Amino acid sequence: MTNQKDVGKVKLANQEVDDLKGHLDIEDRGSVLVVRVDGGPHSLFGLDIANQLDELVDRADNDPTVHAVVFTGAHPERFVSHADVRWLQEGGAEVPPVGPRGAAAIIRTAKSVDRIRALDPVVRKTPLWGAVQLDRMHETFLRMNRSGVVFVAALNGSALGLGAEFAWACDLRVMADGDFFIGQPEVLLGIMPGGGGTQRLTRLIGTHKSLVAILEGKPFTPEQALANGAVDEVVPPKNVIARAIELAGHFGARPKGSVAAIKRSVYFGGSMSLEEGLQVERTEFLGTAKSQDGQGLMIDYLASTDDTGELPFYDPDTYVRAIELGSVHGRRSRVNK
Amino acid sequence: MTNQKDVGKVKLANQEVDDLKGHLDIEDRGSVLVVRVDGGPHSLFGLDIANQLDELVDRADNDPTVHAVVFTGAHPERFVSHADVRWLQEGGAEVPPVGPRGAAAIIRTAKSVDRIRALDPVVRKTPLWGAVQLDRMHETFLRMNRSGVVFVAALNGSALGLGAEFAWACDLRVMADGDFFIGQPEVLLGIMPGGGGTQRLTRLIGTHKSLVAILEGKPFTPEQALANGAVDEVVPPKNVIARAIELAGHFGARPKGSVAAIKRSVYFGGSMSLEEGLQVERTEFLGTAKSQDGQGLMIDYLASTDDTGELPFYDPDTYVRAIELGSVHGRRSRVNK
Amino acid sequence: MTNQKDVGKVKLANQEVDDLKGHLDIEDRGSVLVVRVDGGPHSLFGLDIANQLDELVDRADNDPTVHAVVFTGAHPERFVSHADVRWLQEGGAEVPPVGPRGAAAIIRTAKSVDRIRALDPVVRKTPLWGAVQLDRMHETFLRMNRSGVVFVAALNGSALGLGAEFAWACDLRVMADGDFFIGQPEVLLGIMPGGGGTQRLTRLIGTHKSLVAILEGKPFTPEQALANGAVDEVVPPKNVIARAIELAGHFGARPKGSVAAIKRSVYFGGSMSLEEGLQVERTEFLGTAKSQDGQGLMIDYLASTDDTGELPFYDPDTYVRAIELGSVHGRRSRVNK
Repeated sequence: MTNQKDVGKVKLANQEVDDLKGHLDIEDRGSVLVVRVDGGPHSLFGLDIANQLDELVDRADNDPTVHAVVFTGAHPERFVSHADVRWLQEGGAEVPPVGPRGAAAIIRTAKSVDRIRALDPVVRKTPLWGAVQLDRMHETFLRMNRSGVVFVAALNGSALGLGAEFAWACDLRVMADGDFFIGQPEVLLGIMPGGGGTQRLTRLIGTHKSLVAILEGKPFTPEQALANGAVDEVVPPKNVIARAIELAGHFGARPKGSVAAIKRSVYFGGSMSLEEGLQVERTEFLGTAKSQDGQGLMIDYLASTDDTGELPFYDPDTYVRAIELGSVHGRRSRVNK
Repeated sequence: MTNQKDVGKVKLANQEVDDLKGHLDIEDRGSVLVVRVDGGPHSLFGLDIANQLDELVDRADNDPTVHAVVFTGAHPERFVSHADVRWLQEGGAEVPPVGPRGAAAIIRTAKSVDRIRALDPVVRKTPLWGAVQLDRMHETFLRMNRSGVVFVAALNGSALGLGAEFAWACDLRVMADGDFFIGQPEVLLGIMPGGGGTQRLTRLIGTHKSLVAILEGKPFTPEQALANGAVDEVVPPKNVIARAIELAGHFGARPKGSVAAIKRSVYFGGSMSLEEGLQVERTEFLGTAKSQDGQGLMIDYLASTDDTGELPFYDPDTYVRAIELGSVHGRRSRVNK
Repeated sequence: MTNQKDVGKVKLANQEVDDLKGHLDIEDRGSVLVVRVDGGPHSLFGLDIANQLDELVDRADNDPTVHAVVFTGAHPERFVSHADVRWLQEGGAEVPPVGPRGAAAIIRTAKSVDRIRALDPVVRKTPLWGAVQLDRMHETFLRMNRSGVVFVAALNGSALGLGAEFAWACDLRVMADGDFFIGQPEVLLGIMPGGGGTQRLTRLIGTHKSLVAILEGKPFTPEQALANGAVDEVVPPKNVIARAIELAGHFGARPKGSVAAIKRSVYFGGSMSLEEGLQVERTEFLGTAKSQDGQGLMIDYLASTDDTGELPFYDPDTYVRAIELGSVHGRRSRVNK
């Protein structure tokens, strides 16, 4: 399929990658940021993308005007091809030859070391550097799960390995119909998913479907991904970004504090024992119940109930409008506005 | 939809609510109790219902003749509308302004305080009172999950918020077909589910479907609830209670000790790590294996195997009858009885 | 259905069981072992089978040339009927009369005692012997979950109780079409699943379907089992073993270290809290990334990318072949081989 000319062209591109490096193009659309992931000609997710993603999540999380982020691929047919394999290979080669217990110790040490980022120049020269980077990327994805920002993956094309794991770390996924695929082929490289795939795909589509897919290394077609819940919608390629922005606007219209509290309760509490999970829920609930948004909307709800004689959620028009707007406003507040 | 006359009527009803208060009507049908939840004209779940539910669960759990409880709504078109929002709003307003760490501390303190119920008159005057009530309601629902009693929600109509959470805390759900809905709209009030919704719906229909439903605040129709497993059956409204009683009788016919052990293993063990869950199962299993029911039925099973030359579960008639009766009785014991 | 003659015949068979005892017939087919479970005329899973299974798993796990094991039943219409009920009944009768807290203590003691197998002759005479045996069987099934060997249940017929639990402990399940069934009828005996059923079925088909099935005690038909994910494939009876061997070969072709790491991450990490699960994944990932298989295949992948100008996983032929072979080999290594 590739001829000499192609090889030559891409070889040139490969050399350029070192200079180009990956980067994120951020387009500000008010409450929604549209982010194009440019991983170079091969559309790879490497250290540069990881670092810029960490900054972006931090910014979106802390800026109260940002409610949602849409990620899409800069490559015409790929969301993210997969991780930069050189990054994984060199990271793996650096790990000292230890058993599983030793590996767990390295992970723990990496976690501690990462808290003191001033040490970076030192750590960069040690065999722990790969483990530290891995730990940071996990932390970035976890911050996405903890955040009041709604993250939507606009899968304009294929996504394997870390590309798929990046999509699983989002809250919603829209995928382009066509000859594309999404999945975890790592087993075929003698490794395994390392960006959260064994955990997030398992919680997304269930233990057994996740196990079989990851053990086999065969990706899902868009139809299969939709059928098993690995993506939320499959639409024609030209509509992927527009639909993702629409979903981002819809879900992002909810109070940011509620979104954060719900995401933390479901992603974290929902993966704990039932009793521990309920403890997380109670804590998050009290946080929202005393919030300005919560108090204001509840008082409005009570007043509207008194005024109209009916609970607003049992007035069909009011409930439908609330779902559209992202919060329920009683008859009175509507008149006042 | 509401005109002046209606508003007047309901306003009157609203005033009466303070006197009426919510209550549970309990109908004793032998091994099955049928409980009508009367939350006043708006069908709200407030503190009175919560307290009476706690007593009811206690009674059903401790009375060996009670094997199942069916809950249904006294309102013609609603199971439970949702929580009494005044209760949530005032509870939230009382929470001291603290961060998540502080909220977790309040929850922990509430848990300790709740162990010494003699303190109630004191606690009632503190900002912790709301958190204590929340903690008690969680404990009531957890006791339902731990119990050998089979709880069936007969959803004669709609259920939102705490109404839905009450249904998720049951073991089985039958819902009326029609223009009804069930779900968690809390996000639209700037709050989030606080009665276990983020935990039990997540474990019932899976992490992602639960996340999307709770983030959006849009309820399920009966058909959608059935399709995603949020309810077990959808039947014509006039059949809801009869069908729920039928299921209550069927599942309640099983040995109460086995039902309790299975519920604890699945609800609690099933939400822990695999190794911890297996530890729960082993413990519960030994409890049933040495029980009078277990020993008697196993000895009977062995004798019947010897008498007939076939394992009773591999005699189709015997197995079908066992499923109907709730326990397997070999040929010999059938003749003797 | 059974007449005097049958009864006589089987009674004789029953007496023979004590002499025959259960055993495993192991057929060596290179990287795949085909194991026929012979539980005597009633096809029961008792202590002998448990002990031989433990040895087999140990052998398969430690022999680098063994990549998969297929289990099937020696009985013409049954995989494993269920546990030897005498074993359960006597084990239960031995448990001292204690509450749940006491049972938990017995389980813990059994776990400690089991570490010192030299004590067996002593323990055999104590009431703990049943608990120790239970603990060992759980440990055998857990070792199957931790192992780099792919275990496939070739369900040539029905499987109840421990027979079903043995199948849930495998990685894949192929079931014969026909008048067969698989499930957990223990509740009808006044006991509950004790071989992992409440935990593994719950994680396989979801909390609620598992709860209902185990509470009711009614088994799944092959079609139902397929529909809810309790088995992977249903094929004509004569094809069951061949198809299971095919799957064993396909999945067993993956690098054994990757298979083990993936199974541990999904089965164990996937049942923990999200953050704990990610910790397990990171540890397992580093183990594979520095492995010989991983380093060799990644270096080959990078070289092939340079040579062809395309990522091998984005060359359709290469990816399809990798799924067939179990590992991805770039153009260069293919030429060299």
